[in-house]
Amino acid sequence: MQTIQYETLKTAVKDKIMTITLSRENLNAFNHQMLIELIQVFDEADANDDVRAIIITGDGKAFCAGADLGSGTSTFENKEASIEEYRDGGGMLSLRIYELKKPIIAAINGPAVGVGATMTLPMDIRIASSNARMGFVFSRRGITMEACSGWFLPRAVGISKAAELVYTGKIIPAEEALKIGLVTQVVSPEELLPAAEAIAKEIAENTSAISVTLSRQLMWKMLGASHPYESHKVESKMIHWTGQQADVKEGITAFFEKRKPNFPMKVSTDLPSFYPWWKTNNEGES
Amino acid sequence: MQTIQYETLKTAVKDKIMTITLSRENLNAFNHQMLIELIQVFDEADANDDVRAIIITGDGKAFCAGADLGSGTSTFENKEASIEEYRDGGGMLSLRIYELKKPIIAAINGPAVGVGATMTLPMDIRIASSNARMGFVFSRRGITMEACSGWFLPRAVGISKAAELVYTGKIIPAEEALKIGLVTQVVSPEELLPAAEAIAKEIAENTSAISVTLSRQLMWKMLGASHPYESHKVESKMIHWTGQQADVKEGITAFFEKRKPNFPMKVSTDLPSFYPWWKTNNEGES
Amino acid sequence: MQTIQYETLKTAVKDKIMTITLSRENLNAFNHQMLIELIQVFDEADANDDVRAIIITGDGKAFCAGADLGSGTSTFENKEASIEEYRDGGGMLSLRIYELKKPIIAAINGPAVGVGATMTLPMDIRIASSNARMGFVFSRRGITMEACSGWFLPRAVGISKAAELVYTGKIIPAEEALKIGLVTQVVSPEELLPAAEAIAKEIAENTSAISVTLSRQLMWKMLGASHPYESHKVESKMIHWTGQQADVKEGITAFFEKRKPNFPMKVSTDLPSFYPWWKTNNEGES
Repeated sequence: MQTIQYETLKTAVKDKIMTITLSRENLNAFNHQMLIELIQVFDEADANDDVRAIIITGDGKAFCAGADLGSGTSTFENKEASIEEYRDGGGMLSLRIYELKKPIIAAINGPAVGVGATMTLPMDIRIASSNARMGFVFSRRGITMEACSGWFLPRAVGISKAAELVYTGKIIPAEEALKIGLVTQVVSPEELLPAAEAIAKEIAENTSAISVTLSRQLMWKMLGASHPYESHKVESKMIHWTGQQADVKEGITAFFEKRKPNFPMKVSTDLPSFYPWWKTNNEGES
Repeated sequence: MQTIQYETLKTAVKDKIMTITLSRENLNAFNHQMLIELIQVFDEADANDDVRAIIITGDGKAFCAGADLGSGTSTFENKEASIEEYRDGGGMLSLRIYELKKPIIAAINGPAVGVGATMTLPMDIRIASSNARMGFVFSRRGITMEACSGWFLPRAVGISKAAELVYTGKIIPAEEALKIGLVTQVVSPEELLPAAEAIAKEIAENTSAISVTLSRQLMWKMLGASHPYESHKVESKMIHWTGQQADVKEGITAFFEKRKPNFPMKVSTDLPSFYPWWKTNNEGES
Repeated sequence: MQTIQYETLKTAVKDKIMTITLSRENLNAFNHQMLIELIQVFDEADANDDVRAIIITGDGKAFCAGADLGSGTSTFENKEASIEEYRDGGGMLSLRIYELKKPIIAAINGPAVGVGATMTLPMDIRIASSNARMGFVFSRRGITMEACSGWFLPRAVGISKAAELVYTGKIIPAEEALKIGLVTQVVSPEELLPAAEAIAKEIAENTSAISVTLSRQLMWKMLGASHPYESHKVESKMIHWTGQQADVKEGITAFFEKRKPNFPMKVSTDLPSFYPWWKTNNEGES
C-alpha cells in the first residue's frame, strides 16, 4: 500500500502495520525536516484504519545518531526565537507521539543517541538488536535533556538509573539497556523486525482498534494523574459506552465461539464523542 | 472466629489474619453480588482488631475468571444508568481497597483475568502459584480497562509492560508475571497460602497496627503526589503524634530488651484525630 | 583540600569529588547535630566548584543505625513544638538533598536502618557493600515513616516492594536490596568506595557541571509532574540557553576532535537567570 512520500523517512504499510524507517545521511541524524515529516507520518498513521500498529526503525547501521551537528558549534544556537518563544523540536515530537492513537514500537537496530534515544521514550515498547547502543549524551556536549525526557526517562527506568545515564552521559550496550528496563527485549539483528512485527500482529489480529486507542490514551494520561479516581471517571464512561457498541458484541461472541474476533469498528470514524477527554493543544492540561 | 456469612465469599480469621476466598460458579466469576460483598468484607476487616492483615485467594482452580458473561453480549450494556451517572463496579472495588486500613496480599492460585486481574492491582502485594495466569484481556472482548487499572497498572509494571499487556490482551503465565514485576513471588500451589501467611505473620507478630495503617495510607496517597513536601507535612504530624503514644514506648522497650513487641494500641479506637487527612468520599481529592 | 570542620562528619575533597563520612558513636546514629551539619555540608558542596559529585558513606562498620535512641522511650516525644509546628528532621534533610546542585552517591558500607535508610532515598544513586543491610523498621518501633520516604520509597522500588518492606519492618541484606532495585550495585567492602568514585569520576571528567545541575533538578522535579509538557517548557528554555553558551562550543569541539572536553562554566556563577524555575522555600510548590 502506498503512503505519502517523505525525504527523511521510508514508509510501508503491510498486514495492518506501518513501518517507518529513519533514513538520512550521517547515521539518520535528526534535523528539522525529519521532525516535520515524523509529525506528518504520525498524522497519516492515525488517520489510516489499515494501520493498527506502528514500527519505527533506522536505515543501515544506526537507529538515529542524534541531532545533525552539521552546523558545528552553532547547531543549538536558535537565534531566530527568543528564549520565551522557543520550543524544543524533540519535545514537539515527543508530545505528538504521546497523543498517538496507534501503538508504536521502537525497533532499535543500532546507535540511538541524544534525540535518537529520547524520541523513543514516549513510544509504547522498545526492543533492540544486539547491535544497539543508547546514550543520553547531553551533558558531554554541554547541552541538556530534551524531547520531554526529563518527564519520560525517570518513568521508564526509575530515577536512579536515569540519573546515572544522564549525569555520566555514557553510551550503554543493548544488554545493559535490557537489564535496566530501557528496552524490554534484545534479539539478533536479523530477528529485530520479526520480533517487532510479532507484537504488532498480536495486536492487529486479536484486538479492537477502538479499545486499544482508548486504553493507550488512558494509561499515558493516568501516568501523570494524582489519584486513581481520575482513572475511574474516564473508565466508567469507557465501559458504559463500549458496552453498547458493535465491537463488544463481536468480542464476546468470538470468545464463546472460540475463534478470532473480527471487530467492525474503526478509529477514523467510531471513537466516542467524549474522545479526547483532555485538552489536545499540547499545553499540558491533561 | 466467626465472620459475617457471604454468598460469594468464604472468610476465616485466624492468627490475626483474615483469609477471603472468592467462591462462585464459573471459575469465581465476578458479579454484582461479589462486588457488594467484597466491599462489605473489607469494612468488616477494617473494623476488626483481630485482623492485622488480609489474604485473598480463589476457590478451586481459578482466582477469578473475570466478569461473569452469563448475560452474553449484553453483559456490559448497563442501560439503567446514563453515561454520566454510571460508575464502573471494578473501580468502586479498587477505590475501596485503596482506602483499606489493613495490608492485603493477593494469593493468586489460578487464572486471574479481566477484573480478576485488575482487582489485585490496588492490593499491596501479589504472589502467585505456578498455576496462575494473568490477563488484561479487555481489548480482545471489545471493552476497555477498568477497576482504575489505567492508574494502577503502569505504576505496578511500568508503562511499556503495561502497554504490551493491554494492547495485546494476551494471558501470561506466572513466571512471566514474576519477571515483569506483576507478582513478587511464584511458588508451588501447595506453598501459596503458607507463603502469603508468612508475610502476614511477619506483620502481625512484629509491628504496630497503628504504624502500619498510617504508613499504608501515606505511601498509596503519596504515589500520586507532586512533591515530597506533601509527604513531609503528613509525616511530621505522624512522627510528632506517634512519638508520644503507648506503642512507641513498647517498641523501643522491646528493642532494648531484645524481645518481640506487644503493642497495646488498636486501629478501631486509637487512630489520631488527623486520620484521615484526605477526603474519603472517593471523589479523588487525595 | 580543606573543608569546614564538623563534629559528626568527616569530609574530604579530592579529584573533584567530596566524600562525606558519617562519624558518630552508636554506629553513626543520627541526631540533631548530624542533621544541622549535613545541611551545612550540602551548602558547602553546592557552593564549591571543585565539587562535581558527592559520595556519602559511614565510618567503621555501619552506614547509619538510625535515630540515636539515647533518650530511650522519650526519643520521639518532641514536646517543645506543637503538632502543627513540628517538622520532621529527616524530612528537612531529604528536602535539602532534593534541592542539591551536585549529584550524590550513597556508598552504603554497613547497616542503614530507619533514617539511615530513608536519608539515602533522595540521593541519586545507591550502591552497597556486601556487608550492607537496610531496614525501614518504623512499624517495629511504633513510629512511622519519615524523611519524605512516603514519597520517595514507592518511586524507588515500586509500591509492592515498598509495602512489604515498611509493613514488615524487616531488615534485608545487600543482595535483596539489589534484587528489588533499592541499590543498583553490590560489591565487596574494599571495592565500595572505588566503585562510587568510578561513577563520580565519569561525571567529573566528561561532563558539563552546568548541564548536570540543570538535568538533576529537571528529572527530580518532573518525577512529580502531571504532564510531559511541564518538562517541555523547562527543557525548551534550557536548550535555547545552553545552545548559546561556552560549554556547548567546547562540548561539540571536543566531540569533533575526539578528545575529553574541558568545560569552562561554573555552577557557582554561571547558572541561567531562570534557575531555579521552582519555588525553593521547600513549601512544596515545585
